[in-house]
Amino acid sequence: MIASASSVFESRQEAFLADLFSFLRFPSISTAPEHKPDMLACAEWIVRQLAASGLHAKIMSTGGHPAVFADSGPPEANRAAPTILCYGHYDVQPIGEQVLWESPPFEPTIRDGAIYARGSADNKGQLMTHLAAVRCWKEAAGQLPIRVKFLIEGEEEIGSPNLPAFLRENRDLLACDDVLISDTFKHDADTPAIPYATRGLLYKQLTVDGPTRDLHSGQYGGMVANPANVLADLIASLHDNQRRVTVPGFYDDVTPLTATERHQLNQHGLSETNLLAQTGSPTPLGEEGYTATERGTARPTLDVNGLTAGFSGPGSATLIPARASAKVSMRLVANQNPDKISRAFDEALRRICPPAVRLSITTSAACPAYLRRLDSPILQVAIASLASTFGREPILTREGGTLPILPLFKEILGADSLMLGFAVPDCNLHSPNEFFHITDFHMGTRCIIQLMGALGAGG
Amino acid sequence: MIASASSVFESRQEAFLADLFSFLRFPSISTAPEHKPDMLACAEWIVRQLAASGLHAKIMSTGGHPAVFADSGPPEANRAAPTILCYGHYDVQPIGEQVLWESPPFEPTIRDGAIYARGSADNKGQLMTHLAAVRCWKEAAGQLPIRVKFLIEGEEEIGSPNLPAFLRENRDLLACDDVLISDTFKHDADTPAIPYATRGLLYKQLTVDGPTRDLHSGQYGGMVANPANVLADLIASLHDNQRRVTVPGFYDDVTPLTATERHQLNQHGLSETNLLAQTGSPTPLGEEGYTATERGTARPTLDVNGLTAGFSGPGSATLIPARASAKVSMRLVANQNPDKISRAFDEALRRICPPAVRLSITTSAACPAYLRRLDSPILQVAIASLASTFGREPILTREGGTLPILPLFKEILGADSLMLGFAVPDCNLHSPNEFFHITDFHMGTRCIIQLMGALGAGG
Repeated sequence: MIASASSVFESRQEAFLADLFSFLRFPSISTAPEHKPDMLACAEWIVRQLAASGLHAKIMSTGGHPAVFADSGPPEANRAAPTILCYGHYDVQPIGEQVLWESPPFEPTIRDGAIYARGSADNKGQLMTHLAAVRCWKEAAGQLPIRVKFLIEGEEEIGSPNLPAFLRENRDLLACDDVLISDTFKHDADTPAIPYATRGLLYKQLTVDGPTRDLHSGQYGGMVANPANVLADLIASLHDNQRRVTVPGFYDDVTPLTATERHQLNQHGLSETNLLAQTGSPTPLGEEGYTATERGTARPTLDVNGLTAGFSGPGSATLIPARASAKVSMRLVANQNPDKISRAFDEALRRICPPAVRLSITTSAACPAYLRRLDSPILQVAIASLASTFGREPILTREGGTLPILPLFKEILGADSLMLGFAVPDCNLHSPNEFFHITDFHMGTRCIIQLMGALGAGG
Repeated sequence: MIASASSVFESRQEAFLADLFSFLRFPSISTAPEHKPDMLACAEWIVRQLAASGLHAKIMSTGGHPAVFADSGPPEANRAAPTILCYGHYDVQPIGEQVLWESPPFEPTIRDGAIYARGSADNKGQLMTHLAAVRCWKEAAGQLPIRVKFLIEGEEEIGSPNLPAFLRENRDLLACDDVLISDTFKHDADTPAIPYATRGLLYKQLTVDGPTRDLHSGQYGGMVANPANVLADLIASLHDNQRRVTVPGFYDDVTPLTATERHQLNQHGLSETNLLAQTGSPTPLGEEGYTATERGTARPTLDVNGLTAGFSGPGSATLIPARASAKVSMRLVANQNPDKISRAFDEALRRICPPAVRLSITTSAACPAYLRRLDSPILQVAIASLASTFGREPILTREGGTLPILPLFKEILGADSLMLGFAVPDCNLHSPNEFFHITDFHMGTRCIIQLMGALGAGG
């Protein structure tokens, strides 16, 4: 049956490309209030697409832009088949400077085998592989080989503010065995990739207040605490000489890297030469005992994101600043508990902060890391589907960044996520001239058709 | 003869007050190009005043606003009498917000026994005591009891940029035994003060460059050095746990405080209660083993004056900043050598800075401290003159701030400076409604008459 569904796709490629173009023409910019009608029109278009594939599809309201939900129901011939929740988003980033676009951002244009349009890679083009796959299955077999649900939101580009509440309120509706997401990248043009881990994020704002106004450093220098000096002491205390984070218990719960994982990460990770070429840094630096790739993806870190105190203009001002502030963030890894680390961080700083200043600490983000077990059967089916479609084994990667939806799906729905991305890494994501290769659209659709079929056949 | 000169003053107080009012009416704001003609007119007025007292007075050009120089020549009856160089400035601060002035800043107005005008205390009113004193001596005795020179510059409020070159080029012309400056404050309304020490200043700008652009902390966090974290390490390294500065050799040349000086400083220094009330700081903090007054006036310090790095807006940005900068200044005391400390500071930071970033350090100010020997005969005469005029012993103080002209006069002219100030500390210096008490103008002039007479009589 996989062959039948695939041949439907091969015979109707032009029609699916036309559908994708229709999808891309909606200027569904979630951050722009004037595009609210376009958002709704785009969501309604998706409902019609999914209904045409036989799913029960509807628009559901959230606190913000609406979401699309759809459900195929269990396949009649295989009521025990697994349920996959396809997650994606129909909103796109703003276009930035219009003059930098070589063709209009909402008029998809093909150049050199790629579709240029805002949202072509992130996320409409990649999401279209799911829409096309269910259509092909429906037309080839009259029904899907597994139960497929869709959750397509309209607020991903603004941080999914209403998603956590939506998931909690619709836990039963969204129940699934795994979440399928095509919103990431291949490893390179020829090699597919599956990220199986992301880091968490703990974001802190530190404010050190000393005198009630800036003081003359001649008149008071040496008499009272300088908040900027104290802030430097606090920040410096957070690392030891081996660039390990000193927050008590910071590493206690960290899931260690296995030898196999280290080998795999370093084999395909960023080389030191490429790291320095990409960043312009003179040499790498980080926690001793780990490679740069390990430190940047699988080890927790602590970075200052901003410092503010006193006089920053040209020239000199001899003052003791009344206040010094820092933004400090930590990237966490599995199995660190953000709340526990957050408390330990605050306590460590309060313990060493002198009473000669007032320290306040606020937390603006606390998101856990995500790590999927590599021996998961669904993951193994996905690996096989990618390998057979691309003719090459996918690379299993850990991402250094944070994707809050992954631990959210795990926590609320109890489901792991499968990240199958088909875009190339340099696809101008969030920039002008975003593109998605037509061949990647084709390969992606074939891969999803295959994955659904294989899951329906029991792996 | 002191009595005669004093009685001239008593009989002509109204005329001297009128002269001061004329002086104050010049809007001699050195920073404002549109007041250049007023600057010159004011300098010419001073020349006429000094010429009327029998001095050879002239305008001398500098690289900027002109200076007034005058010389009485040696007294005929006492050719071995000492030479005093009266230093002052005829330029004033800008007025700030006009609406905050209760009377026009350049129309001197008497309220509650005080003269309100820009420059009334800083420095025209105080300088007028010198001009009046030489006039009284000339009228009472036909000549001055000592040789008096005047150097009255027009760029003090903009940092005296042309003074060092002017002093070097006119070293012989300006030769003197001591410099007399009335540009400071009394200890309080009733008690005169003589500052005999000021601190030096060494001002540094640190720039730490890492990656060539801000990086995503998820993508690269842990891989390369974060310039803001490194900057915090560098700054924190500059103090030890006793809040002593760790720059090697920093304290080696410091002239220690004697037990007598410590007693004197603490007796009249800022109490902890007043320090906390003035600053709003929760508790004092500084180098262990010294009181706040000692630390703020007679001990060297190191303060961060500004910090800049990365994202400082509201909310969160997860980035590794490309650059982090700090402004750091040190207040130095006698007998620290700014150049030696400067080199040691740079070397200490370069030694601990990791090669994963580029550190650049620039020096924007390097001025030594000033300390006058308390057993100087001229100082003893000044103490006696103040005591007899005010009926109260002056308090000998150390100033925490920096006055570059004092070490400059010492270095170039080989002369110590005598700081006899007559304004009250809360005279709205550099602020709206600056004032100078008429009684302080009178007391100051009597004191200068007496000082000149006593110096002419051999102390």
